[in-house]
Amino acid sequence: MKYRRSGRLVDMTQYLLAHPHQLIPLTFFSDRYESAKSSISEDIGIVKEVLETKRLGTLETSAGASGGVTFVPTVDLDEAEQLIDRLCTQLQDPSRLLPGGYLFMMDIIGDPSLTQQLGRIFASYYRAEKIDAVMTMATKGIPLAYAVAAHLHVPVCIVRHEQRITEGSIVSINYVSGSTKRIQTMSLARRSLKPHSHVLIVDDFMKAGGTIRGMMDLVEEFQSTVAGVGVLTEAVHEEEKLVSDYTSLTKLSQVDVKNKAIQVERGNIFNSSFGDRK
Amino acid sequence: MKYRRSGRLVDMTQYLLAHPHQLIPLTFFSDRYESAKSSISEDIGIVKEVLETKRLGTLETSAGASGGVTFVPTVDLDEAEQLIDRLCTQLQDPSRLLPGGYLFMMDIIGDPSLTQQLGRIFASYYRAEKIDAVMTMATKGIPLAYAVAAHLHVPVCIVRHEQRITEGSIVSINYVSGSTKRIQTMSLARRSLKPHSHVLIVDDFMKAGGTIRGMMDLVEEFQSTVAGVGVLTEAVHEEEKLVSDYTSLTKLSQVDVKNKAIQVERGNIFNSSFGDRK
Repeated sequence: MKYRRSGRLVDMTQYLLAHPHQLIPLTFFSDRYESAKSSISEDIGIVKEVLETKRLGTLETSAGASGGVTFVPTVDLDEAEQLIDRLCTQLQDPSRLLPGGYLFMMDIIGDPSLTQQLGRIFASYYRAEKIDAVMTMATKGIPLAYAVAAHLHVPVCIVRHEQRITEGSIVSINYVSGSTKRIQTMSLARRSLKPHSHVLIVDDFMKAGGTIRGMMDLVEEFQSTVAGVGVLTEAVHEEEKLVSDYTSLTKLSQVDVKNKAIQVERGNIFNSSFGDRK
Repeated sequence: MKYRRSGRLVDMTQYLLAHPHQLIPLTFFSDRYESAKSSISEDIGIVKEVLETKRLGTLETSAGASGGVTFVPTVDLDEAEQLIDRLCTQLQDPSRLLPGGYLFMMDIIGDPSLTQQLGRIFASYYRAEKIDAVMTMATKGIPLAYAVAAHLHVPVCIVRHEQRITEGSIVSINYVSGSTKRIQTMSLARRSLKPHSHVLIVDDFMKAGGTIRGMMDLVEEFQSTVAGVGVLTEAVHEEEKLVSDYTSLTKLSQVDVKNKAIQVERGNIFNSSFGDRK
């Protein structure tokens, strides 16, 4: 089917957005639209300019016979900060306070559109790292992990507290919860993660960091490497955290159960040279 | 910022795709591009034609002062069938067979791009129904549920076997597993689902249907209504299923543990008048 430029631009935009971090050969588009490569190159230039002006992403082009284009999703830093500031305000609602100093966050985690946007911030931050898989802990880390992984185009592996029958051989490790000091077990199906992977760990909440520390140890059991750690919310903790190198979107800096007051601020991902990162 | 048509088309496409099932006023676009409404209407016509030709969705326009446009994602039925046929072939790999006649499916569920496509099939099928929320069971139903919910632009509520402290008051019910006949408990946080909701239940696997039946009962406990049931894989079962009205993407029609043979075919969603559904 032959397309005019306007039609090509619409279809090319939707196609590239649906295939982040994947090299699409120019020949794919010239076949798809029965158009000359020179026209396709011009189209790509137009799409690239809009995406970059809107800070939605970059189009990386490679030349030569195997030439093509790769869409790399990014975020507009100002918009990301505004999104997080709104999230902080939402999280400060005293009615979220639950026994034990926990916060009700399921409405945040349960919003697919919001988790997509939050995941995109991590995907933008870690976009230049070599990442082969995203690892998370069931249950509440899963939505954010999928959002990150979708934007990076990598698979997700889900670590669990239980040992389920339906996944074949599993690797289990013991770890000490940093907050409660209890010994717990976490497991991952042997087939869920390839050896020698670079793993980005994503979770919803980090207090002392015991669960994250456990996942880092689990990554090693798979002869793999931790490429980064990102959490939706980190909580202040009296003692030193068990994880030093991590990024957070929000920081629960104060919980006053008696007066029902919560203070939430931007996480450390915004302290860093986020805006300047290639 | 003023845009030429080519730039508007690229940005409008990405914006509409990112906001499915949401009415976008024409004034939003005319402000965004500093363009006359007549130009915006023409742009929308072009985007609509491409999306409908590619069967990626429809653009529903409403006239008048509050006029606007809503992107409704659909799937190309032929492409959906091809996707499911490839999935069936993958699932028939004998190395997936686990003790108890279960199948290893975590690589399928762990692929965010694939779950997005599978979720879109359900979102397309149920697009004309009134749906306020998607409900699923932790852990393995979550990725597909989020994919469906993202395309329908509704929140997800996650039912769990455990009773966690971090979600405030919960509603628990007992149910009988259809396969093992054991009595089990499932819980949902009171705040996770608004009363009087229309709920689409999504899960990864259904054998006798006991878990789905339990979720249907749980929906009633929230004074809500089941709008539909969709599962990734249904398994043949000797006895009558506990759920009669459901859709499935794939059907595990035969598992021969002794000879390590599995037979998987298209689910019942393709038997129905899927193609003709408005």
